[in-house]
Amino acid sequence: MNTPAEIPAIPAVILVRPQMGENIGAAARAMLNFGLDHMRIVAPRDGWPNPAAVAMASGAGRVLDGAQVTADVAQAVGDCTFVYATTARPRDMTKPVFTPEAAMADAHARIKAGQRVGILFGPERAGLENDDIAQANAIISVPVNPDFASLNLAQCVLLVGYEFMRQRATVAPVQDGLAGTDWAQHAEIEHLAKHFEERMDVAGFFFPDHKAQSMKTNLRNMWSRLPLTRADVQMLHGTLRQMVRWKERG
Amino acid sequence: MNTPAEIPAIPAVILVRPQMGENIGAAARAMLNFGLDHMRIVAPRDGWPNPAAVAMASGAGRVLDGAQVTADVAQAVGDCTFVYATTARPRDMTKPVFTPEAAMADAHARIKAGQRVGILFGPERAGLENDDIAQANAIISVPVNPDFASLNLAQCVLLVGYEFMRQRATVAPVQDGLAGTDWAQHAEIEHLAKHFEERMDVAGFFFPDHKAQSMKTNLRNMWSRLPLTRADVQMLHGTLRQMVRWKERG
Repeated sequence: MNTPAEIPAIPAVILVRPQMGENIGAAARAMLNFGLDHMRIVAPRDGWPNPAAVAMASGAGRVLDGAQVTADVAQAVGDCTFVYATTARPRDMTKPVFTPEAAMADAHARIKAGQRVGILFGPERAGLENDDIAQANAIISVPVNPDFASLNLAQCVLLVGYEFMRQRATVAPVQDGLAGTDWAQHAEIEHLAKHFEERMDVAGFFFPDHKAQSMKTNLRNMWSRLPLTRADVQMLHGTLRQMVRWKERG
Repeated sequence: MNTPAEIPAIPAVILVRPQMGENIGAAARAMLNFGLDHMRIVAPRDGWPNPAAVAMASGAGRVLDGAQVTADVAQAVGDCTFVYATTARPRDMTKPVFTPEAAMADAHARIKAGQRVGILFGPERAGLENDDIAQANAIISVPVNPDFASLNLAQCVLLVGYEFMRQRATVAPVQDGLAGTDWAQHAEIEHLAKHFEERMDVAGFFFPDHKAQSMKTNLRNMWSRLPLTRADVQMLHGTLRQMVRWKERG
């Protein structure tokens, strides 16, 4: 539970399984150029703290000092109410795909409405996996030259940070009338998705076996796309528990 | 003199007295990410060609192959009709100072009108000298965090290239990535909401009686607020049917 005063006015930059310490340090510099100093790091390959990251960060060392390290993506985004995933190529995930420009306009509006937002950046080379992206609410895709797309991690962070800064002066007022809504946090959605999946598993919904995984992914993507409130989540948990009671009554 | 057909539809990126070959190669990569492949190099410190530049450019080697090397800025911008100079800090030069955004909007308009434009980028560390800037028509200043401004050469090229591309893209309507999504129609959502309510009614979810109506209203409000696809709706109907089968198995 966070009071509005505790919600940062900037997105969390979340580096997922970064490999080279140098790239973590370069990302910290890219962030600080545009006033972003809230970093989270998921399962860094070479552990943490990382001297190579510190050396590269140079004047941006305080971004690293304040970085929160977590074991998995779910923990890193647990307190976020809206999560963007950056991807180099389009994925068929039935999520909104934003340009950096549209995404950061959206982020400004959400932050102004009291939401806590995070942006996932994948590891060098491979990028985010589908399981990472399934936990995001929307995708950010930088429209690079299709014949030459070579953005590195820090450059991708730089462009997103640039867009956040660029649009700071021109934030549109929130118009959706949902300001003040008690949106569910990511960890709560995750918990609901798991609960639902477990119930459906017991009920034999995931059939036949060879389709089970894609059915589960579809369900997970649906939950992460839906704008659920805390009350919605509690109500849906309640319906699942009630189905069990109904069954047990025989 | 060039006929309009010979005027490139992109600005020339002009690196002035670059020092490290690696940075020239990195600038070539940054350019090509956004479709800029017209490079000019003024008095490179380590001569030309530069093996370190080639190694770093990797897939963007053709930008280096086509680069024109000149001895001074005047030669490099000789055929340009409008020249921008990038600077990290404001200079008192009585020239218009543009953000990258405003500058690239201006560049698009000029190119469309048949002008040939160039953008000067200074050497690492020192940046452009006043004599270089004096040859430009306008200044581009990237609005970075005043407490931490650490853009390197390739990053500066990247941001300007990004803005040039971004504003070319705004000519065409921007898609949100969900165009073509098969959204459920209102009647289908209504049908799902009813199905869900019936199942929960049978399961005894709406208890106690005096709260039943408000619980039903909350559920109905939730369904009408969620952006569900047809596939989502079918999947959710399926989960409800499966709960019945599960119950009937006893």
